[in-house]
Amino acid sequence: MATDRRTAILEGAARVIARRGVRGLRVEELAAEAGVSTALIYYHFKDRAGILRHTLEFIGDRAERYTAEEEGTTGPFAPHQVLERSLLLEFQDRPEVRENSTAWGELRASAVFDPELRADLARAGLAWVHEVAALLGEACPSVPAPTLTAAAERLTALLEGLSTRWLSGALTLTHARELMREAISVELGHLERR
Amino acid sequence: MATDRRTAILEGAARVIARRGVRGLRVEELAAEAGVSTALIYYHFKDRAGILRHTLEFIGDRAERYTAEEEGTTGPFAPHQVLERSLLLEFQDRPEVRENSTAWGELRASAVFDPELRADLARAGLAWVHEVAALLGEACPSVPAPTLTAAAERLTALLEGLSTRWLSGALTLTHARELMREAISVELGHLERR
Repeated sequence: MATDRRTAILEGAARVIARRGVRGLRVEELAAEAGVSTALIYYHFKDRAGILRHTLEFIGDRAERYTAEEEGTTGPFAPHQVLERSLLLEFQDRPEVRENSTAWGELRASAVFDPELRADLARAGLAWVHEVAALLGEACPSVPAPTLTAAAERLTALLEGLSTRWLSGALTLTHARELMREAISVELGHLERR
Repeated sequence: MATDRRTAILEGAARVIARRGVRGLRVEELAAEAGVSTALIYYHFKDRAGILRHTLEFIGDRAERYTAEEEGTTGPFAPHQVLERSLLLEFQDRPEVRENSTAWGELRASAVFDPELRADLARAGLAWVHEVAALLGEACPSVPAPTLTAAAERLTALLEGLSTRWLSGALTLTHARELMREAISVELGHLERR
């Protein structure tokens, strides 16, 4: 029950951030959105920084779920296919994905102005880079780790850049996916030729 | 004189956006920052959307100036060097560059929530993509235009992603430059092998 309400608060926070931005997040509004009292929010998350930190984690877990959930369907897949699916699943016209990407982009953009968010965001970003580097390593087993990490940093930073362009209507979903797919193939080609 | 004040307003707007974000931009504060009346701001820019549109243009022109200004110094440069310099000059620890990149990133991130900004931002983004595609074309003359444009879209989206990570402290300036330099060389290698 406590867990349900905690989850409801975090779902509400992701929704509010995706709708109005981090700077539009007021605890009163979040309470109304989640159908709980502000006291319960403070009890679970201490303060606004705590809400943002846990929302970040919640968004990360949810992304991991929807980028992994299709993996079992028709596999087994070659390593480069697993990598491609995992990155391309961030570009989907599903409300959950759109909301998640919007909230992540917003948290990333807000960290420019809000030093409190930075450490958590950097940690979450690093975990993601290492995950992508591991998938690259499965596709290209002989490549040294620092080279894989650099390629993963480029692919994830590109994904964030493309995602913001997609969500702000500067790129269509189809074209964003196409550019991402080509980038993966260009980076893999580069790693294989080393 | 009118031009001076107009410029002062736009410089002030870029400064305020870089300091507090687009959503922190109030016309009263901008008037105080630029040392003019709110009436003069409305006279020049009509409304808040007009201020944002012209600030976007101002930021674009300023970026073009500082990414071009060193070109004359020790040239002539090979096409791929001109390209590299132009993209890497977006990563500099100079207040002007930091402010410009912060304001551009903020305008881009805000367009997710603010449809009014989108058309202007998409236009400015497209002009930049074509500029980078032209530089890629000088380095790789036999590559067809759509292929150059796609590579330019990837490089500029990556630059935006890396820039946000740098400005939010997730990447050092040196590492962001390194990743950008490698990305250019990976994309050029890909174009040359086609």
